Amino acid sequence: MGCLDDGHFGVELDNGVKLSCIELGLEGEPETVAIENAVKVLLQGLGEDVNREGLLKTPLRVAKALRQGTTGYKQKVKDIVQGALFPESGLDNAVGYAGGVGGLVVVRDLDLFSYCETCLIPFQIKCHVGYVPRGQRVVGLSKLSRVADAFAKRLQDPQRLANEICSALDQGIKPAGVAVLLQCSHVRFPNVQSFFLDSNHQGWAKVLVSSGSGVFENEKADAWSDFFSLMRFRGISLDKIHMRDCTEQCWCPFHSSSGEIFSSNIGPANPGMIAAATSILRSLGEDPSRKELIGTPSHFVDWLMNFQNTNFEMKLNGFVKGKNDYIRSNGEIIRNEEQLHTELNLSFWSQCEHHLLPFHGVVHIGYFSADGIDPIGRSLLQSVVHFYGFKLQVQERLSRQIAQTVSSLLGGDVMVLIEANHTCMISRGIEKVGSNTATIGVVGRFSTDPAARSMFLESIPNFATSAGSDFSSTA
Amino acid sequence: MGCLDDGHFGVELDNGVKLSCIELGLEGEPETVAIENAVKVLLQGLGEDVNREGLLKTPLRVAKALRQGTTGYKQKVKDIVQGALFPESGLDNAVGYAGGVGGLVVVRDLDLFSYCETCLIPFQIKCHVGYVPRGQRVVGLSKLSRVADAFAKRLQDPQRLANEICSALDQGIKPAGVAVLLQCSHVRFPNVQSFFLDSNHQGWAKVLVSSGSGVFENEKADAWSDFFSLMRFRGISLDKIHMRDCTEQCWCPFHSSSGEIFSSNIGPANPGMIAAATSILRSLGEDPSRKELIGTPSHFVDWLMNFQNTNFEMKLNGFVKGKNDYIRSNGEIIRNEEQLHTELNLSFWSQCEHHLLPFHGVVHIGYFSADGIDPIGRSLLQSVVHFYGFKLQVQERLSRQIAQTVSSLLGGDVMVLIEANHTCMISRGIEKVGSNTATIGVVGRFSTDPAARSMFLESIPNFATSAGSDFSSTA
Repeated sequence: MGCLDDGHFGVELDNGVKLSCIELGLEGEPETVAIENAVKVLLQGLGEDVNREGLLKTPLRVAKALRQGTTGYKQKVKDIVQGALFPESGLDNAVGYAGGVGGLVVVRDLDLFSYCETCLIPFQIKCHVGYVPRGQRVVGLSKLSRVADAFAKRLQDPQRLANEICSALDQGIKPAGVAVLLQCSHVRFPNVQSFFLDSNHQGWAKVLVSSGSGVFENEKADAWSDFFSLMRFRGISLDKIHMRDCTEQCWCPFHSSSGEIFSSNIGPANPGMIAAATSILRSLGEDPSRKELIGTPSHFVDWLMNFQNTNFEMKLNGFVKGKNDYIRSNGEIIRNEEQLHTELNLSFWSQCEHHLLPFHGVVHIGYFSADGIDPIGRSLLQSVVHFYGFKLQVQERLSRQIAQTVSSLLGGDVMVLIEANHTCMISRGIEKVGSNTATIGVVGRFSTDPAARSMFLESIPNFATSAGSDFSSTA
Repeated sequence: MGCLDDGHFGVELDNGVKLSCIELGLEGEPETVAIENAVKVLLQGLGEDVNREGLLKTPLRVAKALRQGTTGYKQKVKDIVQGALFPESGLDNAVGYAGGVGGLVVVRDLDLFSYCETCLIPFQIKCHVGYVPRGQRVVGLSKLSRVADAFAKRLQDPQRLANEICSALDQGIKPAGVAVLLQCSHVRFPNVQSFFLDSNHQGWAKVLVSSGSGVFENEKADAWSDFFSLMRFRGISLDKIHMRDCTEQCWCPFHSSSGEIFSSNIGPANPGMIAAATSILRSLGEDPSRKELIGTPSHFVDWLMNFQNTNFEMKLNGFVKGKNDYIRSNGEIIRNEEQLHTELNLSFWSQCEHHLLPFHGVVHIGYFSADGIDPIGRSLLQSVVHFYGFKLQVQERLSRQIAQTVSSLLGGDVMVLIEANHTCMISRGIEKVGSNTATIGVVGRFSTDPAARSMFLESIPNFATSAGSDFSSTA
């Protein structure tokens, strides 16, 4: 029997985790093919042509991303920790605590991501893990990260994730105690129907959860005080922690019980799409009838429907602006001296058509005008941005579409800069958490005048939409 | 023929890169075994017992880390980019530039790491890649990251890395131009022999390099101005760039031609260790006689020899301090009211004994004293830290050793916090770039008094030793 027939030939990665060789390929496996077929149904439900070149491989990309993002189901903690427990002297208890007896060890700021079990959209995690060694032994530091990752790479809820990491490390290391603190950020798009109304929309649902065992079992324990003292530097203070009771209410913005009904309101959900989303859960090895997953297919479909292909064109309704000419009362036409004007930090939300994953950030628009004021107003520009954002997109196209449209609104000389975080660069195999993407579109004078471009670009303040970066201020 | 006999059965990862199935296992492959044997020779040369439990699997871990960190040799850019070029409309050139024609695309802040070809120690990279699309097509954004990573995962020099990424993307995408900007940080340890003399030691050698093709070919081109305007937010300005001429001088602190001779000066290098390091290069698929690699084995061995097992014990030479008692002139003994004193941010440098990779950061020491001043001085504490740092270590042990020693110097009640960045958490399969590790050791009063611990921990200012974080201020 050759390799290709043997889907379960195991190879061992550095972490001692066994992965099937074929799984790493993924392509052609029945589960992958099933997800691909489901994604085709979803794309068709969005009114897309699945044979369009940009979408041709999207089903395969989505299937691989989902399967790679859920490899945790196949990983065993015992395999990860085994062979990474090392003898290490401690101090005599009468003297103090350090090393392999009682010396607190904390690994901070591990970047992880999970798929939200309520809506199937990835959420970001800053994970802090600590433990207190016992019995003159310590665990290799990287194993704390490996174990956390094995549980993150599943369909998850923040509190369950914290509990599972905690319990697994407790069993694997058998220490005096384990502490897990997770800062989770879930994208929270404005509703496509209501984006005009909600100009102060908060882009992230955030939750801070903890789980503790042993000396961390009691949330008032001194061990937690030490742990939080080490977290304080990161803007986290004890009173902000939603200790274990936050399981009561689902944090996902797509969950109706959260009091925020998020739905495309475009009519009853397409049963074919719901069935397709359900089959995706099954292909990932999940049980779609598990209590927490019952509403997931319809949440996911509702979300996707925000990006359906409407074929509407943006109607400019007489907003088209002429050149910046000014007619004096005597009939003389004068070209006014024009000044650079900007509308900065217009938020946008979109869906990557290659991976069906969100990307979002800000749009900056620069233009020349003699009037000194924006002739059409920030809110109209914001709706142009939303109009093109709420589609299956690529950032390059979004830049072009906004530049073209705004150019006809504002009179020809327009520059657009889009700065975005792409979920597809953070999750999947890439995991470039801090990365972000800038694209530029220029029309008219900006395309030939480097000084004009530079003047615009230098008017833009520093950019930070990273999910984790502003956690402390909005948690 | 079964799978196990076929070392070259290819599986395709998400990025289209073919990796041999067995390579992913690595264990047992001839190249891995050869590196393991070489690492045993190196450990013995350091005076270590290769059968000590903490070191037992070190040869295998080092071999896997090195091979995983150099998988780039086997990746083909064509395979990565193929299938990820998408048709995308642009604007008419007469109107402007956007989308698939001329709209600059920049992916910023990709975290990468490479092995320095001069000394075989990993260095960190913040990579910024841009290109100007041409011919109505764009490339999937993640491929810019994949291609950069394929060249980073080799033995590298910053300028060559920039050139290779640039040239590969240019050939793969055939755009109007490619721009690559790399911020590289190479650990620059103080010499074990001279750490007393160099209290202002800079922990990082840093270099900023760029490479451009097409519209970025000329470094004065307008395209570069646009690119740098987008970088400005990150503290990089044009005049800080060592444009292509920086190849003249090697940046690696271990290279004698840089004017900084870094050597353990512990006598002539052990020929067996040099031969072992040379065989590692060969096992990674490199040619040890390549010009840039000629000195690498001896640089690597010189570096390692800083951490040799000396079996010296730290001699306290009468520095042992008694209790904080004070004898009045009338002979009455009074226990003074003691206050918390701290010595913060003592730098340390060490070598992880599990992976033979550097870890480094700061040590904070808290103690109680009635005198109001440090009775032994910061420099002695700094040398205690260096004494225990310059060994094959684990952070937990380092905390214990420093706590124990300082406790005998400063009178019993001591708390030690070590905050560290571990190269082994950044490179290899983990790649948790922003992560850092805190360990605590407590002696005496601190082990029973949570308020004392908390008082100490809260006296410590925010921590940031990340290589990239302070690039702009020291470049």
